Amino acid sequence: MGEFIHLVVVKFKEEVVVDDIIKGLEKLVSEVDLVKSFVWGTDIESMEMLRQGFTHALMMTFGSKDDFNAFQAHPNHLEFSATFSTAIEKIVLLDFPAVVVKPPTA
Amino acid sequence: MGEFIHLVVVKFKEEVVVDDIIKGLEKLVSEVDLVKSFVWGTDIESMEMLRQGFTHALMMTFGSKDDFNAFQAHPNHLEFSATFSTAIEKIVLLDFPAVVVKPPTA
Repeated sequence: MGEFIHLVVVKFKEEVVVDDIIKGLEKLVSEVDLVKSFVWGTDIESMEMLRQGFTHALMMTFGSKDDFNAFQAHPNHLEFSATFSTAIEKIVLLDFPAVVVKPPTA
Repeated sequence: MGEFIHLVVVKFKEEVVVDDIIKGLEKLVSEVDLVKSFVWGTDIESMEMLRQGFTHALMMTFGSKDDFNAFQAHPNHLEFSATFSTAIEKIVLLDFPAVVVKPPTA
């Protein structure tokens, strides 16, 4: 079984200090070995119409769906989620097995 | 300068044959060397409330923003986009420099 991806596309509330959220995420993924990779970014390029107000994408990769499930139930994740959920104005979340068509090269 | 990510979250129209779209994407990324990696998936896990009707995530990685810009203007991409845009019910698109907190390991 291949990798499993947890993708979050989000617009934070105006008053949120995004740096603090990112620091929390950095701490979370450094503490929880189940998280295989974590990449994020903030849109700089797409047309406003297509971006639809969303500002940040957060992508975590897991070795398997079981690892993802274990992460979801992990106390550190539950603690972080409680904070994260108060910072969100809107969100789209997709969890899916990765279909790798063109694998990343170093 | 690091990698640049082109992220598309989409709900296709009911009548669309998603396999055809994916085949078109496979062809596109195999033809255009600028695309460094391509991974996609269809949600199987998140709560409907959080998924908000979106069904598919498509992620392309480029070596730089310049490569992404060149891809955007590439005739094969323009041709594919014309087909793709007719298949979409709704879409969110984010283009951003990747901030790699935890790099993927093989």
